Amino acid sequence: MNKQNLENYIFELEFKVRDYECDLQGIVNNAVYQNYLEHTRHEFLRSLGDDFAELHNQGIDPVVVRAELDYKYPLKSGDIFICKLGLKPVSFVKFQFVEDIYLKNSNKLILNGLITCATTINGRPVRFDSLPQSFVKLITNNQE
Amino acid sequence: MNKQNLENYIFELEFKVRDYECDLQGIVNNAVYQNYLEHTRHEFLRSLGDDFAELHNQGIDPVVVRAELDYKYPLKSGDIFICKLGLKPVSFVKFQFVEDIYLKNSNKLILNGLITCATTINGRPVRFDSLPQSFVKLITNNQE
Amino acid sequence: MNKQNLENYIFELEFKVRDYECDLQGIVNNAVYQNYLEHTRHEFLRSLGDDFAELHNQGIDPVVVRAELDYKYPLKSGDIFICKLGLKPVSFVKFQFVEDIYLKNSNKLILNGLITCATTINGRPVRFDSLPQSFVKLITNNQE
Amino acid sequence: MNKQNLENYIFELEFKVRDYECDLQGIVNNAVYQNYLEHTRHEFLRSLGDDFAELHNQGIDPVVVRAELDYKYPLKSGDIFICKLGLKPVSFVKFQFVEDIYLKNSNKLILNGLITCATTINGRPVRFDSLPQSFVKLITNNQE
Repeated sequence: MNKQNLENYIFELEFKVRDYECDLQGIVNNAVYQNYLEHTRHEFLRSLGDDFAELHNQGIDPVVVRAELDYKYPLKSGDIFICKLGLKPVSFVKFQFVEDIYLKNSNKLILNGLITCATTINGRPVRFDSLPQSFVKLITNNQE
Repeated sequence: MNKQNLENYIFELEFKVRDYECDLQGIVNNAVYQNYLEHTRHEFLRSLGDDFAELHNQGIDPVVVRAELDYKYPLKSGDIFICKLGLKPVSFVKFQFVEDIYLKNSNKLILNGLITCATTINGRPVRFDSLPQSFVKLITNNQE
Repeated sequence: MNKQNLENYIFELEFKVRDYECDLQGIVNNAVYQNYLEHTRHEFLRSLGDDFAELHNQGIDPVVVRAELDYKYPLKSGDIFICKLGLKPVSFVKFQFVEDIYLKNSNKLILNGLITCATTINGRPVRFDSLPQSFVKLITNNQE
Repeated sequence: MNKQNLENYIFELEFKVRDYECDLQGIVNNAVYQNYLEHTRHEFLRSLGDDFAELHNQGIDPVVVRAELDYKYPLKSGDIFICKLGLKPVSFVKFQFVEDIYLKNSNKLILNGLITCATTINGRPVRFDSLPQSFVKLITNNQE
């Protein structure tokens, strides 16, 4: 369960907790982690460059169909953390973003996230190999 | 400053504080009040019916150009409150939403909000009398 | 997967989508569903009355350790929906909130949520039967 | 109104728009700017070091009593921007954070913010000179 599968990450993004993200209990609210994961995915896709923007303009988008989050240890005000991202195929239509959050200094595991996406074209599912080849390679290279 | 101008309100909406809206200090975060005010304005506009949706489809929209919020007393977990809305003209192009928040039971004043909007058509300013007549009447009727 | 297990719900709460909850794609952002689920859980706990507040004051709280969300169909601006909640035991320490969201009018399934909680006292895990008896009965009554 | 009072800023913080901060209209939601301003203020206070944390522990906190935001130009997905902060006294009890947002590359003005704070000790107003001397000097040095 404590998946420190460090070797498979292909992208990472550093964040700092903002006070408005913390709730009554003085820790980051559970929903906010999904914001962190989404921003990391979008920055990752942005890093792939024009190919991806192009596909979006053609109506091809990955859509989140399932999110799984294992809360291991809470982030609190001022914490600096890294969200690390990997990719793996699930089927011809679905693939998963492995997204794990670690405290920056101690490398303590904060959260294991697993975001399952389906590829859609104008809202209808298509095989994920219709995504840019650079992206498809990233998904399938991590396959064991 | 303590504008309890109850007679001019033309719309109101009831809310209950949700715990995720509260921050470290155990009270509703300052930014969240703008969410409450926006939702009240949008529900008000929705209440005006088809006229407004029609105008939106023609590219005519009120755009917020200035927000003023006076924080009088904090809302906390579980509080039930009412956001009351009035309208007044500022110029041919600008008008204001007066939006005040009161605790439901005690009628205690929580916040005075003043949201200045400009009317735009496809992003360019136009006289607000290009808005639906039902809306223009609401703005000018409250004129003193 | 399409768990319409209507018979086991013990609490429900009605919501209306607020425009600020929608994102670039014109639909409710994925993270916001966790806000809806959290608010429903907290309103449910609040509905149990003094027993629960009492326990909280003693440092006993359910803590979310895992969230699973299956996104079936997106909510959009103005949609009215119901979040329905059930409870079931997982172990002596863990229990789950089943939280499913349906569109109000059509009863269309929007989201299946499964929130696993651990009971803690001052941050350390304890058997969930240390929670109020009214709550423990709710959990175990739904056991098959 | 277009207060490009660059000379008085004493702190700045760089941000990048996250997609979940954008709303239906494809631009950053009005309320989110208050999040940016708050985070900038808190990072500024944090930069003042131990003095400030100390005061907070003694129950002394600046409380926002009024927010004024002039929306000049909208931020959109992926924009990189700088929030610049200045300080000025209003009375013995109140002071203001001038917080202006500029697009990073073009230096285009996005928003003028003016956040009025009162100093409180355990919730009651006190003269702001009870704040750390380093902070009081920052406020009064900007006085004209």
